[in-house]
This record gives sequence, C-alpha cells and structure tokens, in this order.
Amino acid sequence: MISDDEVERIHFAALRILETIGVRCAVKEARDIFADAGAIVDETENRVRVGRDIVEAALQTAPSELTLTPRNGARAVKLGGDWLTTAAVLGPPACTDLIRGRRSGTLADLAELLKLTQFFNIVQMNGWPVEPLDCEVRFRHLDAALAMLTLTDKVPYVFCQSRQRIEDVLRLCAIARGETLEQFGQRPGVFSIINTNTPLQYDVPMTIGVMDMARHGQPTLLTPFVIAGASTPATIASAMAITCAEVLFGVTLAQLVRPGAPILFGCASKNVDMRTGSPAYGLADMMKCTLIGGQMARRYGLPLRSSNFSASNIPDFASGYESANAVSSAVSAGANLLMHVAGWVEGGLCSSYEKFVLDCEVAQSMAHVLEPVIVDDDTLALDEIAEVGPGGHFFGTARTIATVEDAFYRPLISITQNYGAWMEAGGRSAAERATGIWQEALRTYTEPSLDPATAEALAAFVARRKEQGGAPID
Amino acid sequence: MISDDEVERIHFAALRILETIGVRCAVKEARDIFADAGAIVDETENRVRVGRDIVEAALQTAPSELTLTPRNGARAVKLGGDWLTTAAVLGPPACTDLIRGRRSGTLADLAELLKLTQFFNIVQMNGWPVEPLDCEVRFRHLDAALAMLTLTDKVPYVFCQSRQRIEDVLRLCAIARGETLEQFGQRPGVFSIINTNTPLQYDVPMTIGVMDMARHGQPTLLTPFVIAGASTPATIASAMAITCAEVLFGVTLAQLVRPGAPILFGCASKNVDMRTGSPAYGLADMMKCTLIGGQMARRYGLPLRSSNFSASNIPDFASGYESANAVSSAVSAGANLLMHVAGWVEGGLCSSYEKFVLDCEVAQSMAHVLEPVIVDDDTLALDEIAEVGPGGHFFGTARTIATVEDAFYRPLISITQNYGAWMEAGGRSAAERATGIWQEALRTYTEPSLDPATAEALAAFVARRKEQGGAPID
Repeated sequence: MISDDEVERIHFAALRILETIGVRCAVKEARDIFADAGAIVDETENRVRVGRDIVEAALQTAPSELTLTPRNGARAVKLGGDWLTTAAVLGPPACTDLIRGRRSGTLADLAELLKLTQFFNIVQMNGWPVEPLDCEVRFRHLDAALAMLTLTDKVPYVFCQSRQRIEDVLRLCAIARGETLEQFGQRPGVFSIINTNTPLQYDVPMTIGVMDMARHGQPTLLTPFVIAGASTPATIASAMAITCAEVLFGVTLAQLVRPGAPILFGCASKNVDMRTGSPAYGLADMMKCTLIGGQMARRYGLPLRSSNFSASNIPDFASGYESANAVSSAVSAGANLLMHVAGWVEGGLCSSYEKFVLDCEVAQSMAHVLEPVIVDDDTLALDEIAEVGPGGHFFGTARTIATVEDAFYRPLISITQNYGAWMEAGGRSAAERATGIWQEALRTYTEPSLDPATAEALAAFVARRKEQGGAPID
Repeated sequence: MISDDEVERIHFAALRILETIGVRCAVKEARDIFADAGAIVDETENRVRVGRDIVEAALQTAPSELTLTPRNGARAVKLGGDWLTTAAVLGPPACTDLIRGRRSGTLADLAELLKLTQFFNIVQMNGWPVEPLDCEVRFRHLDAALAMLTLTDKVPYVFCQSRQRIEDVLRLCAIARGETLEQFGQRPGVFSIINTNTPLQYDVPMTIGVMDMARHGQPTLLTPFVIAGASTPATIASAMAITCAEVLFGVTLAQLVRPGAPILFGCASKNVDMRTGSPAYGLADMMKCTLIGGQMARRYGLPLRSSNFSASNIPDFASGYESANAVSSAVSAGANLLMHVAGWVEGGLCSSYEKFVLDCEVAQSMAHVLEPVIVDDDTLALDEIAEVGPGGHFFGTARTIATVEDAFYRPLISITQNYGAWMEAGGRSAAERATGIWQEALRTYTEPSLDPATAEALAAFVARRKEQGGAPID
C-alpha cells in the first residue's frame, strides 16, 4: 500500500509522538517502570514521554513468532512468520439467531457459541463469543472460563479486567494443562486483547493487563481503538502513526516488565463514518489501514493481528462483502491472527449464529485459496487431455471418478443450484441455510475429552474462588 | 500463486497441447490461414496442430496495451499495464428486481439496465445487461446496438454471432463516432467476448468473430469456457494449461489475420461443482485460477480480463462474499478489465437490478482501496495530534471540519447505523436499500448528448437494414 520510505516516515512520526507528546498512563507502577528505563514522566498529568532508544531496545526483545498451547496440545497454534490462525468473535453483549431472535447474552448462549467454536475446524482459537450477562459480575470470569476450558480444548481467552481476574483465569488455564501457574508461564497458552483509549491513553485495566500478562509470559494483542476523524486526525497516515505509537508504548512496557514477553501488533484502525459518528468496520479505508498495518508489523518484526470486521447489522449482501473484504485484506496484509473470524454483526455488539456459519465459509474458502496449487506432470495431465481430445468431456476419466469428492473446495454455504432447482428446494437465502447448519452442529457436537481429575480441579478452583467472593468490582 | 518455473511449465504444456493434440476449428477459412502459416491441419477432423514458433511469433505482435474509444472521447478506457477498467454484466436472458420480480428480458428492460450502466461511474464500459427477447432475432442486434449507442456514450459491446451481425454493429459504432468503417478500424471502439468450446474447440461464430474483429482492428476477449473436472481434467494445473492453449490459438489466429490486432487474455476458468454439475462461479478454486491467469497473462504480455462472478441466485450474504472475492482476486491478479462488474446473479442467467447497485459498491470500494495513501508532513499531522493531546478528540479540528465530507470512502450501500437506529429506519437489508437507489438512478438519469445528424444516421441505418431483412438465422 505504501513505499518502504513511507513506512519509515510513519515509524518516525510514531517515535516523535512518543517522545514529544507522550502517552497518558493511568497506573503509577507502569509510569515508574518507564521512568526507571529513562522515560520522562510528568506525574501532574500522568504523561510518559518515551525516547526512541528505549523503544528500539524493546523491539529487539519482542519475539516475532510464538506458539500458543491449550490443554489439548494438538490444538496448539503458531503466531508469526507465514502462519495464519483464527479466533472466534469476542465481546458482544448480545446474540441472535433466526429461530430465537435477538437477546442479551446468557451463560447458556455462551455455552452454545463455545460449542460452535469447538465444532468448526476453521475457528482455531476461542474468542469470547457472547458476554454471559446472567452471571454475577464478580463470578462471571470464573463461570465463563470454566465453560471455555471444558466445552472447548482450543486456546482460551482472558479479559484484562483486573489483576485478580487475570490471575484467576490464568490459574484455571494452568490447571487445565495440569500445571502450576509458574509452569504455565513458561509456555504461552492463553491470550488477551488490549484496546488502548486512543488518542494516546492507557487506562488502568489495560495497563495492568499489559504488565500482568507479560509477567506470566502470555501474549497480549495491542490493538489501538483508532477511528480516524474521531480519535485521530482525519487521515490514514496520522491514524497509522498513532496506531504505531500506541502499540510501541505497550510493546515497550511489556518488554520492560519481562524481556521476551510475547506481543502482537494489533491493527483495527478504521475511519469514522461522518454520517453516523460510528466506526466504519470492514469498509474501504479500513482495508487500507490493514494493509499498512501489515507493513508496519513486518517493519517491527511483530506478528500481526487483524479481524473479520463488518458494519452490517444482519448477515446480508453488505455483511458478505464487508467480511470477505476484511478477510482478504487481512490475508494480503500478512496477518498472523484473524480475530472475530466468525460471528460478528452490528459492529461487534452482537453475535449471530448464522453469521458464525457464514463466516466459516468465508474463512475456509480463503484457507483453500492459500493452499498451494501443484503443477507437475501428473496434474498437467497431458495424456488425459489427449485421450479425451477436442470436444470431449472429463466426467468419466479415471482421475475425475477417483477425486470427485475432494478435487475442489466443497462449499459449506454457497450453492450452484440453478434458479429452478433452488426455488423448488425452498428458495432459501444463505443466512437461512446457515440456520440448519448451526443447529446440526449443536446436535452433533461432542465435548472434548478432559480427564476427571482435571475437571474436578477446575470445578474446585471455581467453587473455592466463589466462596471467597470472586472478584468484586473495583 | 505459483512460481515462475511453474508458469513456464503451464506454458510449455499449452504449447505441447497445441502441437500434439491441436484444436478442432470449424471454419475452413481459419484452418487455411493456419495451414499457410505452417500449422499441420487434419481436414478429416478439422484439427489444427500449431507449432510453438508460430505461437511465439504471434505473441510478438499482440499488443500489451490498447485504448478503447467510444463516441464520447471522454469515456475512452485503457486496457493493459496498471490500468483496470470495468464493464457491466453481459448476456443474461432474464432480469429481476425486488419490485417487479423475475422475468424474461425485453427491450424495455435492456433500456433500463443501459441507463444504469450510463448512470454509475464505476461501470466504465457497456456489457449486454439483458437479452431483449421480445425483439425478433434477425433484428435484435440492430435494436440492442441502437439502444446501447443512444442511451449510453460508453464503449459498446458486440456479440460475435455471425459475420453479418458483427458488420452491422461495427457500422453502427462507426456512425456513432462519425466515421466510416475503415476509419473506425484504425482506432478500437467496441469489444467482444469469444468463449471457446472447451476442450480445444473453436466453433463457427467464435472463429468468425476472432477473424472479423481482428480484421476490423477491434479487440476480442478470448475467454475459454473452462470448467475443471468437466471440460478439463479435475486439476487447476491442467485447467490453466488448456486455458492458455485455447487463448494462444485465438491470439495466433488474430495475429495471422492482422498483426497487431488487439486481444485480451480472458480467464474465467473455474471448477465444476461435483454435486450439481454446475460451474462454481466465484468460489475458492476460481480465485486460484484467476491468480494464475494473471501470471500467465503477464508472461504473454497480454491484458487480462477477469470477472465479478458469483454463484448465488439472489443478492444475499453468499452473493456478497462471492462477488467481493471475485473482485479482490481479479485485482490481486492484475486484471485490466473486470467484466460483469455489476448485476450478475444466477451464474449469469439473470441480471438483478439490486445486484447492479450492490456490485457498484463492491467495485468502487475496491477502486478507493487502490487510490494511494498520502504520507507526508501534512497528513501525518503531528501538530494537530499534539494540539489535541492524549484523551482528546478530533471532531472539532480544522482539518476534520474542512474534510468531513470527503476524507474517507462514502459508502453507497453499507451503513454504520446501530441496530436500534437501523430498526427504527425500517430494518432493511442491503438488497432492499439497493432498490431505492436504482429507482432514483432511473429517475435522475439523463440521456448523453448526441448530435441530431448522428442520431438520424444511426436510426436510418437500422431502418435500412431492417428493410433488407436484418440478419436472418444462419
């Protein structure tokens, strides 16, 4: 999207922002860490100005690749290099499906969406597919983590909401792997997202999150909440300069806390829709930011986190093109982690069961495109072509008969039925067809195996922490 | 998608196919042209085997770039190099909209769809947006061409259905430019598509089309109707080898007829859906073919034609993701012409008014993404960022106020309204919103100016040719 020179200009702008404007950081402990490293800290307004030498040193120790290992080692994923992995939608307070309608999330909804996460292979890591609003806040992280660690064996997610909650969930993750918290810290096995308060602010939970996840050797996805024209100037260049400044601030804090702590460059930068004041998720300028984000992440040697974002409220044509564009620009950008790969509608305020299935199609289509094409004597098949000759057909050749099932991508949702056959079959839209698929997925889902002692230890930990009062709101 | 070595392997396979298997060509005149050039012609089965020296010589004279100039010179388009242009949907016998439903195409429908072609700037050339089935066949090409040349001033299209019809339409195109047919032949101003009868067949109208368009200096888009697993072996490699062989056969014929005749490498190669026997338009394997097609077209120095293909019968989520994927893979492939850019549903058997509008959004989003991002002191805006400082917002800065309308892509269809506001506004899907847009486009459409003498000459030509009986079915 931009030249190498322009990449450097954005990087230098980010360094200048960190040096001259600085970041407001709400946690004294973090400000002290920066001050100890030589940053200039203004305690009257909690502003931290970080020199480029400190930032460049941090970039030296941040790893460019990492492996996340959940309780089932076969579900480990690599982040970095040419690897691309995926995680389910994360964070919506509501969910919806075409059968039961739109509703506030419950623990029962969360359980269903976790089952879908487990069911579809293209979803490789957990998100936080709906907020279980029926759980008491002080116990919610415990209930949700227990559900995630029992209903799935994929990499779990932890919200950085408070020091206590992070520790609770990390302890559960450690138990699930049969390890102590210290052992767990030697091998990353959970992840979290840090959304900065753009422009140039790190609030209490986010700052604690960066520090505590780093201390425990677990990765955070540093993802500035950049909305060009609202939280940054109304240009892509400045939006990306602020994105980089905020990511570099977090990278530096994490590396000062624990050199080598894993970090992802999170790019969710987009513009504001001037007509509504809302973020333009999945639209053209976001694609441009994503492509530049990929260039910056490579410049920094950090794995890139991107997303399957879209603006549409329902899984309609706009939803389809927005998601496909988000995914293809993430792939073009060299993303290593595609967040919200399945389920996101309403700009992230709702999880759609149908969209979950539809997005699986978008993502696994792209995965198929990324599989190499084999060009050799066998696949060029000149003998077969000669044998059939001009005007013939290949339905009956040995190869076609032998490979009929697997020769090409078999769509989950897309159909090639002609109009008449499709109308006879009910004339259902893609979203309507998706309903049957998630229903079938929930019917055939099987809980991943978990040895009874571990299951008991998880339940015992949750019970004990609940007895102790959970994690009250600060 | 593949390595340079693999590009050469596909090319060598194509040459071997042309040399050893050959192409069945239905027109004696064409076989004689090949024989004169040194090809081996088997007249018992009309098979033409073409040596690589003949093919390589033809590639030397085929231009890598051309300009198409319609009657309004301001609507001229470049094909080749880094240029990308677009043409409306082409060929469907039916059309549909959410108000009037699905129907066989009429001249009135064609007129409306031509008006939409003229209205939307992102559609830069004509297609043949619906077949006017209410026109008598022998007059149809005259009625349709007259409508195209009066209701639009964009590059027109001609179907290669017979020698007489090609000449009729080219004469009309010449009149529209105020030229004789000979003058018109000096400067390309119309285009046609040649779909070979894969595998390895050129039938009568297609062969005549290649020759006569070349004679008149007008470009054909040589687009093999490749369906891997049906018309080629069930591998991408063999599908692309046959694609190249058939394109090269047409390139050679065109260059033998008129060295320097403009030709596009048309790639519409895809797989068969083994479950329905239908072509898998817009699905994952088609994307792979498109990307390889781009590599082959660059190898040959020919402009690339790709398409906004999709399989879905209606403009739903699947339609959106299929179209977005087709467009983004065409762009990644370096396509110079995106055919069927707007309107295609039902695998090309129907034009949808709503899809026409929705596709305009997909295409103009991509056009916006392709516009360079400016990275300079002004757009990096460090002073503005310093002025607002951590925690502020940019809604009120001078730049935001000055650029509020144009700073970012303004979607035609996508909306960022939250769920509540969207529901209050009627909760309409993207397709439903598109209805109002094409209705408004038809209301505000204005016919492009055409001097009365030219209009009269066009009408007189059509009247005379009708008196003469038009072009009866052969």
